Amino acid sequence: MHGDATGWLADLESRARAVLPAPVLRYVSEGARDEVTLAEATAAWREVRLLPRVLRDVREVRLGGALLGSPTRSPLGVAPMTLQRAAHARGEVAMAEAAAVAGVPMVLSSNAGSTFADVGATGATWWLQLYMTPEREVAARLLDEAVRHGAAAVVLTVDTPVVGTRHAAPDEERVWDVADPAWVGANLPESGREPDPAGRAKAMDLAPADLGWLRERSGVPLVVKGVLRGDDAADAVQAGADGVWVSNHGGRQLDQAQATARCVGRVREAVGDRATVLVDGGVRSGLHAAVGLALGADAVLLGRPLFMALAAEGPDGVRRALGLLHDELEEAMRLAGCPDVAALRGVVDSGATGPR
Amino acid sequence: MHGDATGWLADLESRARAVLPAPVLRYVSEGARDEVTLAEATAAWREVRLLPRVLRDVREVRLGGALLGSPTRSPLGVAPMTLQRAAHARGEVAMAEAAAVAGVPMVLSSNAGSTFADVGATGATWWLQLYMTPEREVAARLLDEAVRHGAAAVVLTVDTPVVGTRHAAPDEERVWDVADPAWVGANLPESGREPDPAGRAKAMDLAPADLGWLRERSGVPLVVKGVLRGDDAADAVQAGADGVWVSNHGGRQLDQAQATARCVGRVREAVGDRATVLVDGGVRSGLHAAVGLALGADAVLLGRPLFMALAAEGPDGVRRALGLLHDELEEAMRLAGCPDVAALRGVVDSGATGPR
Amino acid sequence: MHGDATGWLADLESRARAVLPAPVLRYVSEGARDEVTLAEATAAWREVRLLPRVLRDVREVRLGGALLGSPTRSPLGVAPMTLQRAAHARGEVAMAEAAAVAGVPMVLSSNAGSTFADVGATGATWWLQLYMTPEREVAARLLDEAVRHGAAAVVLTVDTPVVGTRHAAPDEERVWDVADPAWVGANLPESGREPDPAGRAKAMDLAPADLGWLRERSGVPLVVKGVLRGDDAADAVQAGADGVWVSNHGGRQLDQAQATARCVGRVREAVGDRATVLVDGGVRSGLHAAVGLALGADAVLLGRPLFMALAAEGPDGVRRALGLLHDELEEAMRLAGCPDVAALRGVVDSGATGPR
Amino acid sequence: MHGDATGWLADLESRARAVLPAPVLRYVSEGARDEVTLAEATAAWREVRLLPRVLRDVREVRLGGALLGSPTRSPLGVAPMTLQRAAHARGEVAMAEAAAVAGVPMVLSSNAGSTFADVGATGATWWLQLYMTPEREVAARLLDEAVRHGAAAVVLTVDTPVVGTRHAAPDEERVWDVADPAWVGANLPESGREPDPAGRAKAMDLAPADLGWLRERSGVPLVVKGVLRGDDAADAVQAGADGVWVSNHGGRQLDQAQATARCVGRVREAVGDRATVLVDGGVRSGLHAAVGLALGADAVLLGRPLFMALAAEGPDGVRRALGLLHDELEEAMRLAGCPDVAALRGVVDSGATGPR
Repeated sequence: MHGDATGWLADLESRARAVLPAPVLRYVSEGARDEVTLAEATAAWREVRLLPRVLRDVREVRLGGALLGSPTRSPLGVAPMTLQRAAHARGEVAMAEAAAVAGVPMVLSSNAGSTFADVGATGATWWLQLYMTPEREVAARLLDEAVRHGAAAVVLTVDTPVVGTRHAAPDEERVWDVADPAWVGANLPESGREPDPAGRAKAMDLAPADLGWLRERSGVPLVVKGVLRGDDAADAVQAGADGVWVSNHGGRQLDQAQATARCVGRVREAVGDRATVLVDGGVRSGLHAAVGLALGADAVLLGRPLFMALAAEGPDGVRRALGLLHDELEEAMRLAGCPDVAALRGVVDSGATGPR
Repeated sequence: MHGDATGWLADLESRARAVLPAPVLRYVSEGARDEVTLAEATAAWREVRLLPRVLRDVREVRLGGALLGSPTRSPLGVAPMTLQRAAHARGEVAMAEAAAVAGVPMVLSSNAGSTFADVGATGATWWLQLYMTPEREVAARLLDEAVRHGAAAVVLTVDTPVVGTRHAAPDEERVWDVADPAWVGANLPESGREPDPAGRAKAMDLAPADLGWLRERSGVPLVVKGVLRGDDAADAVQAGADGVWVSNHGGRQLDQAQATARCVGRVREAVGDRATVLVDGGVRSGLHAAVGLALGADAVLLGRPLFMALAAEGPDGVRRALGLLHDELEEAMRLAGCPDVAALRGVVDSGATGPR
Repeated sequence: MHGDATGWLADLESRARAVLPAPVLRYVSEGARDEVTLAEATAAWREVRLLPRVLRDVREVRLGGALLGSPTRSPLGVAPMTLQRAAHARGEVAMAEAAAVAGVPMVLSSNAGSTFADVGATGATWWLQLYMTPEREVAARLLDEAVRHGAAAVVLTVDTPVVGTRHAAPDEERVWDVADPAWVGANLPESGREPDPAGRAKAMDLAPADLGWLRERSGVPLVVKGVLRGDDAADAVQAGADGVWVSNHGGRQLDQAQATARCVGRVREAVGDRATVLVDGGVRSGLHAAVGLALGADAVLLGRPLFMALAAEGPDGVRRALGLLHDELEEAMRLAGCPDVAALRGVVDSGATGPR
Repeated sequence: MHGDATGWLADLESRARAVLPAPVLRYVSEGARDEVTLAEATAAWREVRLLPRVLRDVREVRLGGALLGSPTRSPLGVAPMTLQRAAHARGEVAMAEAAAVAGVPMVLSSNAGSTFADVGATGATWWLQLYMTPEREVAARLLDEAVRHGAAAVVLTVDTPVVGTRHAAPDEERVWDVADPAWVGANLPESGREPDPAGRAKAMDLAPADLGWLRERSGVPLVVKGVLRGDDAADAVQAGADGVWVSNHGGRQLDQAQATARCVGRVREAVGDRATVLVDGGVRSGLHAAVGLALGADAVLLGRPLFMALAAEGPDGVRRALGLLHDELEEAMRLAGCPDVAALRGVVDSGATGPR
């Protein structure tokens, strides 16, 4: 037993706040525009009500399995995040070490400050997050290099045709004023080392046809990240995606975009069993993860809380956070009478309020 | 007229807080994880709106009747609670005396600090609450002994495959650090005297088939406690249960489990008239009890408020609390134009908000 | 133009609070039990949203008409209230004078401190509010006497089989400790002069058949007050009632009873055009009155605000309050594009929230 | 990139508050009665949730087009407002200059303090807002004069049969006590120079037949402003209107009128493609404007924020505000995967809350 994730993670975040440079903390924490979407991400998980099953055999609960062909010990994962080297000297490598111990995949930002080689050497299951660039070949070379170092899947971010505006306090110091160049771009050509590579995709053209090209080029499973709509999810799968990642980019892109907790069920319904469904956004406990799985996800990924854990306690903190989440999820599954993830489907109360 | 339960009970709770050791108070009061379910238990009763009937003859209002074969004076009861001897020197015996005077059943925790013989000697209608143990014979012997001392029904708790985590402040003194061994386990074999017997059921296997075995072994009515779903309720009845108890264990097991007020109607609908339906969770007044009955319960049980009454005023406090609840319930039935519990069905406004 | 009712009435209430003896103020203001119903009465009017009509001829707006056979200048009225002589030396007579000037009916409590003769002499249209007593002849004699002095209708209160419990602070001085005997019971036999005549109806039998008897005995229209359900409303009309008054007794009887704003539409639907529908409860402005009419009422009655007006400014205050309400209602009708009350039906937005 | 409209506009409003005479600020800011409608105008835009599309080509996003026959650079516009000369010495002329630069239409109040000639000379696309007067010829002459100076459309306000009451603090100085006569009525005959020309329409008759007359007389497109209902919208179009403006007059007329964000979709559905649909009310960012377009509007108009911009920074402020709104709208369209306004339809999540 590791204690309680919600409380411990909140505490970690407080400690991380004392450690991180203010502009980094602000950059990691902020959301787009009025932060409507950011503000309701966690609340949307909490508003779900569960109807646990009883009289089920839950002596053994199976959390592990395979995700996009790689074995996992939990249906959890590390979402892609930039600036990990601002949180810890070894950055993404430290994060990957923790993911390896926890037995969950880590998704590496294409702007990572650690090389594919170093991340691959940790033995973690890792996937490459990719922004498509107008020059397809830049992305293609990045992709080839990643696969060569063991990337087990490619995650194409599709919700960033432009970077959403976030600037609650425009007169404050910005992250790129304090950033060490070594924090980012370790795998990018010199010309591509912009602080925010999403910026390079400005007003870019990305069409379903690109998915088939990517899938074929990499030879590893392809996940499309940033999908909130059932129709888009079905189109992506039709065009060759192996997985769909329900995400609103942590509330950093289109403000007033719907909470992922309210979209994941519809995406699952749209793709049926033809694709893997992932989700992130506001998950702060193993119970939230259980809700995500119950609503239809195959795995639930976390970003900011693990960034804070890395900043406050290094890889040990991330390991502990992932351990807590695993234990809470296991407990929630037992208490919900569900011996495996499949059984979790159906424990969500579809009408959450009012007498009935 | 006894005054107003809501106010008086709240006042009692304040006084009990001054009397009880802090770890005991914390243990009794706390809920699982983020306490989402705990926090909305009472609110869910309050959010129900009623449509009272008029021009009915309510000169006589009948609250008494029979519950699982035992006569009662009110459709109320005492829910199972551990640590009653921490609230009062005579613990469960004092509670049972009050229940006997009030004419309502008391459900005795299998971990009670008072013996079956002493509880049985009070003349109260009492039921045994049971956690099923991996070794069926331990439970069986407990059961035999209880029936021998007059247990009129068995209540099998099924929502505790593991104990839900509750630890808002993990560094504080825990209840088992201050507990007197005599507070618990008076009816358990030496080897079974663990502070929290639910812990012994860790990850246990409990299947519908066990219900038939239990029912036959005891020869008294069997209630399955901890059911929130209609399908589970129907299965339990099909497997031999005489009653279904809609409960989320006081918000102490799966957090974000639905409020019992929002489940009882669906459970009643699922079992029809084939089983007795009980409910607990957040009831703080006779009006809340009336709502529970109106939604479909045959009886409404209370835990924490009666524990506080026992701590603050001993058996007199419990008697007075049950008297207040009875009077409020009677008044609510009159004001709702309902001469008996059956008439209460149908006074719930099924759409609680918005113009119509 | 009289100014704004909501603000002015709120101000009057503050001033009345300074004038009235504390136990009287408390008695008039309080609601049953936890005051859930009391608290949401006004909010339920405010939550309704309107869809005004345009391009209608509203140069002339007709608020007057006939209500239960008596001409009115506004679809408003004075609800029955006890203790008016605690608010003003001439009590109900002063109130009736104001109602007469405003051209709206006043409903006189059967426990009034002013005689039928004195109220009748004001020239107001007045109706007798009646609690049915176990001895029918007591009610019958009261009725005969009222009709003899010009009562134009009888309002039978049916939501008081017992008096709802209200005692937020049971140790405070109660109204009957400070009440002057002359404040109440001016029309009751000596033996009937109890402070709260509703108390005399404790657990009484009142059946639909009584309505026919009452209707025949009085020879004037009969209104059944305290109905929230469509089925009860239809039964009452079937049994001889000319009107149905949607009321929860100002939140003083069954707590958690539905807000009248959420019942009036269903009652209208149940009785169609076969009966007059009245409503009270939480109305604090002419706009709230417009909402009540739009939802299906033929007239909207007010109690507490007019009591406060009487206490703070005497009959002038009541006149001014009724004038303000009339003017606001007229303005609301114009702004809603409705030349008469019938046109108001249909301006309520039946789905009040969410995009569409 | 201009920064963030919500924050900047809020800041501008603070600065405008320091500049404007208190009665002017109050007059511009206030809403009718209890300000229920005013208070929820912006909240209703914020409560909408979006489901952005992905894998769309949004390299080019088209915001410009034609509105009622005039070319525009954004689907935005300046709503009619009185007292602009109290905000800036050149008043409506300064506002028109900014609108011309931004390439959006300005709607000129019939009570403007600047002449048609001066406004027309700015080169802005401008439309005349008109209150119909009992003497049709007064309106007709105003109309003729406006068209002669280039008014490209006529906007007939139909939600003002009388002026809604607004007087939160009746003892405070009123705007007409401090108003300079030159602030208003520059285009009205001497006899028509009342401070609030809507007052002249008191209880007037305005019928669908008037629309045909107006349309024919002016020879330019006719917009009916102040429609919240689908049936009224369809009637207006049937009677000759080219456009329908969904408005509740900034919450200044019928309080508790529905928020425009909750009406625009129904109006669009009612008129289909047979008419232009405009909307205003509570729009404070380009994202809100995107929501308005997504719900069915062809253009979104703003009043108070531009008034504040004019007061705080003159025409530069208005230009900057319109620029920010344009940029935010463009970004929102890109992030929503919508290359043009037509594509925005369908990105609104029609069920905004609860798991699914």
